[in-house]
Amino acid sequence: MAQKPSIPKGTRDFSPNEMARRNFIFDTIKGVFQLYGFQQIETPAMENLSTLMGKYGEEGDKLLFKILNSGDYLAAIDTNELAQSTSTKLTAKISEKGLRYDLTVPFARYVVQNQNELVFPFRRYQIQPVWRADRPQKGRYREFYQCDVDIIGSDSLLNEVELIQIVDNVYRNLGLEVILKINNRKILAGIASTIGEADRIVDITVAIDKLDKMGLAKVNEELIQKGVSQKSIEKLQPILNLSGDNTEKLNQIEKVIAKSEIGIKGIQEMRTIFNYLKTMNLDSEVELDLTLARGLNYYTGAIFEVKSKQMEIGSITGGGRYDDDLTGIFGLPGISGVGISFGADRIYDVMLNLALFPADAISAAQVMFVNFGPKEETYCLPILSILRKEGISSEIYPDSDKMKKQMNYANRKGIKFVALVGDAEIQEQLINLKNMETGEQQLVTQAELITLLKR
Amino acid sequence: MAQKPSIPKGTRDFSPNEMARRNFIFDTIKGVFQLYGFQQIETPAMENLSTLMGKYGEEGDKLLFKILNSGDYLAAIDTNELAQSTSTKLTAKISEKGLRYDLTVPFARYVVQNQNELVFPFRRYQIQPVWRADRPQKGRYREFYQCDVDIIGSDSLLNEVELIQIVDNVYRNLGLEVILKINNRKILAGIASTIGEADRIVDITVAIDKLDKMGLAKVNEELIQKGVSQKSIEKLQPILNLSGDNTEKLNQIEKVIAKSEIGIKGIQEMRTIFNYLKTMNLDSEVELDLTLARGLNYYTGAIFEVKSKQMEIGSITGGGRYDDDLTGIFGLPGISGVGISFGADRIYDVMLNLALFPADAISAAQVMFVNFGPKEETYCLPILSILRKEGISSEIYPDSDKMKKQMNYANRKGIKFVALVGDAEIQEQLINLKNMETGEQQLVTQAELITLLKR
Repeated sequence: MAQKPSIPKGTRDFSPNEMARRNFIFDTIKGVFQLYGFQQIETPAMENLSTLMGKYGEEGDKLLFKILNSGDYLAAIDTNELAQSTSTKLTAKISEKGLRYDLTVPFARYVVQNQNELVFPFRRYQIQPVWRADRPQKGRYREFYQCDVDIIGSDSLLNEVELIQIVDNVYRNLGLEVILKINNRKILAGIASTIGEADRIVDITVAIDKLDKMGLAKVNEELIQKGVSQKSIEKLQPILNLSGDNTEKLNQIEKVIAKSEIGIKGIQEMRTIFNYLKTMNLDSEVELDLTLARGLNYYTGAIFEVKSKQMEIGSITGGGRYDDDLTGIFGLPGISGVGISFGADRIYDVMLNLALFPADAISAAQVMFVNFGPKEETYCLPILSILRKEGISSEIYPDSDKMKKQMNYANRKGIKFVALVGDAEIQEQLINLKNMETGEQQLVTQAELITLLKR
Repeated sequence: MAQKPSIPKGTRDFSPNEMARRNFIFDTIKGVFQLYGFQQIETPAMENLSTLMGKYGEEGDKLLFKILNSGDYLAAIDTNELAQSTSTKLTAKISEKGLRYDLTVPFARYVVQNQNELVFPFRRYQIQPVWRADRPQKGRYREFYQCDVDIIGSDSLLNEVELIQIVDNVYRNLGLEVILKINNRKILAGIASTIGEADRIVDITVAIDKLDKMGLAKVNEELIQKGVSQKSIEKLQPILNLSGDNTEKLNQIEKVIAKSEIGIKGIQEMRTIFNYLKTMNLDSEVELDLTLARGLNYYTGAIFEVKSKQMEIGSITGGGRYDDDLTGIFGLPGISGVGISFGADRIYDVMLNLALFPADAISAAQVMFVNFGPKEETYCLPILSILRKEGISSEIYPDSDKMKKQMNYANRKGIKFVALVGDAEIQEQLINLKNMETGEQQLVTQAELITLLKR
């Protein structure tokens, strides 16, 4: 009996129209990456579990898709051992590979493994799918693409600036209005130490991160619950209530954390970055947001997050500066890097929602020749060859089916022009070209056809 | 302790230079597919094992990469049952997803699943990696890309002709000389039935398929071993010894298999295809090769195989006509299709071997600005912005490192021009542009710089 076909939950097929739109996003992002001198790499879908495990926290380990060893994978396990196995214990024995969970860890692994061949500072981009065994829900998938761009092997703040320019350039090319929020891990460290809670930096930043959503009162409540003292919370209030433009905010915060060396370093970094940006004429707004925390575990300097100004949706791009840890785990310490990642799926949702995809982000042929039978076919095929040599995407309906069926095909595919060549046209050496949008028809020569379709 | 990083055997990282060359191949293939009105789809890396199992033979089932179920996958298995498990039995209980093995089965699944939304005849292409747990060896990987193009829902032979045109067009654009071999499954059936061995068609075609490599004597030996009668083998000899051009071969074979209805149908199909091709002015040689068999299991009409004329290597493209079976297994019978698949890895090997990649199939920036320090940086950054607005890929070295280090960076990355802007240049509002290939230096204005780099 035939199976009813389906795909695993949380995964997706992409139809021709979806692919055309996705390619518009990927091509735009890729084009900007290249414009800034970044080069592409790809890494395998499968990595050794030893590369992946322990890099994304305990929860992350569980969300890795693990691949069953090939062959008779139970052969080396004796019956007793097997009977007593728990899932976790057994996994370690029957699976040594997993699907990549992000592009950052494979990139770090790649850099360490190829350190002798690479040219540093290494400017790379990578656009590939990643897999996570998350519970699928609206907008969250088990397979999705990441578009990462990183500079590794240089701690110059010019790199942060270039990434901000890239963000600006990508969204300008996509036609999206965004706000880029920026913060600095060193400032957050300075705040924690100033209020006397240096060891609670994670709790504090996690709470601060929620200011946008929960409001000040609830953040303060959470801080109390986490055991932050009333006194420390009071000291924190001016920081949570900062106002003014970026320079003003930096000046205010500087006064509060003046005694923290690392905090002041963070403020200097931000000033340098903002000074660079002044000369750049960006379209996007760049805003210092001290409540921005993001995956604190490996960021050490600037932190970025981009939001749409036109639609309420989570972050559509994010990243930051990481020092040491990332390649350090693979045996190459002392390498500083900075990178950002574009979330193609959310960008897609925003653009679709705002109807921002250009009308020609559709992949159909520009013209379809109707098939009237063998004689007309013979006449049309050489014309098709010429059109294709001219770079004009074209097709001929493969069967001499009923006219209505053929026109319906062209219509449903979104083909803009249909060429009708019957007996009369062959005699006059002309082509009857119908514009499917306007319904207009005109008799044209071969040369005119090319000119018309090349427009 | 730091791990020594590695990747699973049979998988590969792709460096920037490799990616640039691979993209040259993928972009060329994609461009031609689009020119012929084909539209892209993508399917998930993971498919349900029920979709994949049993589609590639017993051996294929073993070569599927299977994914361990998430969570406590042993929870529902009792200890006794577990202790008595074999690998095969256990797999069925702890894994329900696998990585796709090719693009054909997921495509068939996609077509059936989306039959109500698709516009038939459906012209799709798909370029994605596939995974096979094959023993890795030179030129054979566990992860590799396939580039498939298919027309499904039409049995017109014009589709075969379009695919042949696509092959010709792709290899012309890549600059490769190829020979396209073509055969027809119906002719093979006609031969088997004519020599009185209709039920041995698989054995016979498998033996014939080896004629190229083993020679006639060994093929005859194998046929005897397989139990084909001496009389049948004698009848087969004229077919194995066919000579002349395609028309002559068809005429000779027609005489031999005149009584086989299906065989004659195959000959008519080939004549129709060759008649179409006469008007096409192809660059590639198209040769009827009756010894070509290829994956007989689902092909029902034309069979294609493409070989390089410049290098000894296996088939670099292949495919054929399939009826019914492919979508039939998923519950949609009576759909005929035809498709081919380009093997990107072998094409890469041939092109690299023959040094056919264009020199500009390198992804480095066109120009790098040397970094002399903050003042020069401030002067250069707006120039970089202008270059990028003009579509000129450019970068500035992020640190004011020693000149030698910066030049070495540009050199190793293959950057063609280096811009040197020091005090003197700033005063004169000029840029000192060095051609890294010739060593030539010239002072140019900003406008001249743009003109020069746009070439």
